[in-house]
Amino acid sequence: MKKHCAIVLGGLFSTLDGIDTADFIIACDRGYAYLKEYNLEPDLMVGDFDSYHGVVTEGIPTLDLPTMKDDTDTMAAIRYALDNEYLDLTLYCAFGGRFDHLMGNVQAAMYAASRGAVVRMVNQDTDSYFINHGELIIEPREDCSLSVLAMTDECKNVTVTGTTYELTNATLKNTFPIGVSNEWQGTAHIKVGEGILMVSMVNI
Amino acid sequence: MKKHCAIVLGGLFSTLDGIDTADFIIACDRGYAYLKEYNLEPDLMVGDFDSYHGVVTEGIPTLDLPTMKDDTDTMAAIRYALDNEYLDLTLYCAFGGRFDHLMGNVQAAMYAASRGAVVRMVNQDTDSYFINHGELIIEPREDCSLSVLAMTDECKNVTVTGTTYELTNATLKNTFPIGVSNEWQGTAHIKVGEGILMVSMVNI
Repeated sequence: MKKHCAIVLGGLFSTLDGIDTADFIIACDRGYAYLKEYNLEPDLMVGDFDSYHGVVTEGIPTLDLPTMKDDTDTMAAIRYALDNEYLDLTLYCAFGGRFDHLMGNVQAAMYAASRGAVVRMVNQDTDSYFINHGELIIEPREDCSLSVLAMTDECKNVTVTGTTYELTNATLKNTFPIGVSNEWQGTAHIKVGEGILMVSMVNI
Repeated sequence: MKKHCAIVLGGLFSTLDGIDTADFIIACDRGYAYLKEYNLEPDLMVGDFDSYHGVVTEGIPTLDLPTMKDDTDTMAAIRYALDNEYLDLTLYCAFGGRFDHLMGNVQAAMYAASRGAVVRMVNQDTDSYFINHGELIIEPREDCSLSVLAMTDECKNVTVTGTTYELTNATLKNTFPIGVSNEWQGTAHIKVGEGILMVSMVNI
């Protein structure tokens, strides 16, 4: 069982459902305020607090960032999680904000996936996994699309079964988005041999 | 001068400013309704009209999609534009909708960039260019961030000048988002030798 770390980012506020299953919670900047909405405190805070200006509860450890100032808050939090062997990561409040931040968050998730983590970016409408050389088994969800996209130049040996459009040991490319809006025909099994695959479930 | 094609997608409605400079306008599905808000008609319609159910003006050509049913509407529109030598593409109404659609649009933009087009995804808050082996010169914009991200596994020979953080013939990776939220120090010059680079300007 991989150790689970939840990272609450500073995108738009969204549900933190499931955060109680995390072994460790990191708040990035405004994510601290979002946690407070749930009456939760993080185990660690990360960020320069350019987007949160309220009171911080005494005693919350804060990550010192001087040697990593080129990192985004998200990258700094993910590095900390990986360094401490959390390989099951959930990113909350990653959507809905600035497009450059969103793409930075996606690439930070790819960084974690490239180092062996399973990463999930989730809000009330979207549930996206980033996996590298791994497998997901996903029960059908009602009124929900299932999309599979290569995030690296290539994803090799991609197999998708239990869906309307199936693939067997296919190569997907990140310049050829053919996997958008698939549908369940049972339990979906999704495997990738090499490369980082994004598996997104979005309410429709 | 590259021929300019505007493609109006079905994400959230957003400004179509600048669309009058296009040599050709394609509407994808709900994008047709967005064009009508501007009292404009497209030169071509693409899509299966699962998101637009209103009246279509008689005589608007519609792309027949049977042989490309695996394509998203965006990909079909982009293929048409490239086949007709439009290498300056602007994608409107690409943001704000479903995350899987957004990522599909980003990868469709990457497809066009990989085939020599300069692609722009734009709304009132965000102005993102996708370039492959090319150069951009961007005057300073007030209250705006400037982010540079590798969209392929690597972007080689990336040079960024006229900004707070500069780069010279650097290699950027899509698993290492270091280029988020740069700032102008004059006119920004951004070059990429190999790989697809995203240059995003976002209002802050």
